[in-house]
Amino acid sequence: MNIAQLLPSCLRHENIARVEDKVLLVGNRQLLPFCRKEHVCRCAEDSAEAIRSMITQGGGQLETALQTLVLEARLHGRDPQRLEAVCTMLSQARKTNSAVKRELDFLRPVILSLPEKGFACSVEEIVQARLEHYDRIYLSLAERGSRLINDGDGILTTCFPEHSFFLSLALARRDGRKFTVYSQETRPYLQGAHLTAPSLAEMGYDHYLICDNMTASVVREKRVSIYLTASDRATGKRWVINKVGTLQSAIVCRASGIGYYAFSMGLDDSIPVLDSFPVEYRSAEEVKKCQNQDITGKDVRALYPAFDIISPEYVTGIITSEGVI
Amino acid sequence: MNIAQLLPSCLRHENIARVEDKVLLVGNRQLLPFCRKEHVCRCAEDSAEAIRSMITQGGGQLETALQTLVLEARLHGRDPQRLEAVCTMLSQARKTNSAVKRELDFLRPVILSLPEKGFACSVEEIVQARLEHYDRIYLSLAERGSRLINDGDGILTTCFPEHSFFLSLALARRDGRKFTVYSQETRPYLQGAHLTAPSLAEMGYDHYLICDNMTASVVREKRVSIYLTASDRATGKRWVINKVGTLQSAIVCRASGIGYYAFSMGLDDSIPVLDSFPVEYRSAEEVKKCQNQDITGKDVRALYPAFDIISPEYVTGIITSEGVI
Repeated sequence: MNIAQLLPSCLRHENIARVEDKVLLVGNRQLLPFCRKEHVCRCAEDSAEAIRSMITQGGGQLETALQTLVLEARLHGRDPQRLEAVCTMLSQARKTNSAVKRELDFLRPVILSLPEKGFACSVEEIVQARLEHYDRIYLSLAERGSRLINDGDGILTTCFPEHSFFLSLALARRDGRKFTVYSQETRPYLQGAHLTAPSLAEMGYDHYLICDNMTASVVREKRVSIYLTASDRATGKRWVINKVGTLQSAIVCRASGIGYYAFSMGLDDSIPVLDSFPVEYRSAEEVKKCQNQDITGKDVRALYPAFDIISPEYVTGIITSEGVI
Repeated sequence: MNIAQLLPSCLRHENIARVEDKVLLVGNRQLLPFCRKEHVCRCAEDSAEAIRSMITQGGGQLETALQTLVLEARLHGRDPQRLEAVCTMLSQARKTNSAVKRELDFLRPVILSLPEKGFACSVEEIVQARLEHYDRIYLSLAERGSRLINDGDGILTTCFPEHSFFLSLALARRDGRKFTVYSQETRPYLQGAHLTAPSLAEMGYDHYLICDNMTASVVREKRVSIYLTASDRATGKRWVINKVGTLQSAIVCRASGIGYYAFSMGLDDSIPVLDSFPVEYRSAEEVKKCQNQDITGKDVRALYPAFDIISPEYVTGIITSEGVI
């Protein structure tokens, strides 16, 4: 099944990251929806910086990392030392989402086992196979996700919930179910306003953009019946790490008996207790701006915890390719 | 006690609203902290529009309405029909906050009983007396509020919590207590970023500006020990109406055993059951912008419920001049 037609344009492979000759073109999510532009990466260092500075984020990190392997193979051929450095660089660009690290830990020995002859082409084939592998995972998550969506549902979401979410909507609609999506704008980067709401509009789904402080308001008005997000990390014990704002939304939903489900590309039990997990704090200057405009006084201090750690009591289920846990 | 020195500049009477000759100058809160400018009102219609368009808001509405009576007395003298129209206009400009209506209902007969001779001067004296009356109420609320602030507290707040809040901080500091204030930016108008955080910085209080989605994050990190806001309306049965975002913050606080207290200038029991209270919905276009910049696509739909209705289970206490209920 070709999933491209079920996805908004910014989630199609060619718009996330693709290699042309000896450059990697990464879809610049920060300029959407006002401008479609590709960010040019000429080496893995550029890719890592694109991830760090959130030119791409979420599932975009994974595809950017994979295509960086293609780029690096074209640039340097089979070079174990460089490959090691590239994998470390990409894995550490943003540590909370461990999908990149897990993928590279898996791929590195596979790539090292390839012969020198036709190395770049072989890497490309492997990356292509991995993208198709992930498409199948997205689709299997979406099949489970779509079954959670009932006719007439109000679906709350945070940040940009990526492939599995949009495919779930597509399958639910294919099966004749109607729903309305409430997309939080997700300050300070506004992924909800920049990516999610325009993608919902593009795909013709009924939707409302709300500010991040309006969650309890729409819940109180009984507009919401399920809360669905992606996850940057999830564990077998039902801990979820996701964009800041997820925890308070999950708490509000639980107070009203609304289920919270997070999609996970794969559980990560490498760190057992998650309440002590180090949260990524980003520059406070990012909170003091909105779309590069100052929103407060120069002498104001701010805080920017980028992720929430959601304990199992607030997580109804994690949607994995093995089932909903 | 002159409270002016305990208040940030934007809360001093002369900067909220003052009549000069035959114009009313209203401090334009929308331009703060970048620009101090006064909005010129030449009649009650202008004042009502200034309230509606949120040039001023919260406690500023009350002082603007009071000074409009002075302006109108200078313009029209003793004119019962005009006074009636002015009171209706001002009371209905934004209906959720009932302080203006209650004040005008109280003052109208007082003003109508004044003789024609020296009418404008008499109105001015009455308004001055009412402002001093409110200053005493602010101070009495602040005495109760400051007693809720313990040394080392983290104080969460929403929107711009006005006089009673800032006076509470001043009294707590006078008594040697240290605290940190977490100010939510309060989209879409950003009163927290525009007014609260700069006022905290101006007064030298330890503070952090956070985005509206970071409340549970700072609560989870045990940074917050009390949640304090103003209220647009509060009832004897402990229902509170306040800026959207208050309900979810109160729910998050309750889930962590943190008390939520709202300041009230006077309980309003004119409407008994508040869960069915009509919420003011403002234009969705306001959510689609930040500081007049578009933040999403033209074809995106949005919702802007402006207030939250907070049921008694999430309200620890309402701070009134008669005590904390």
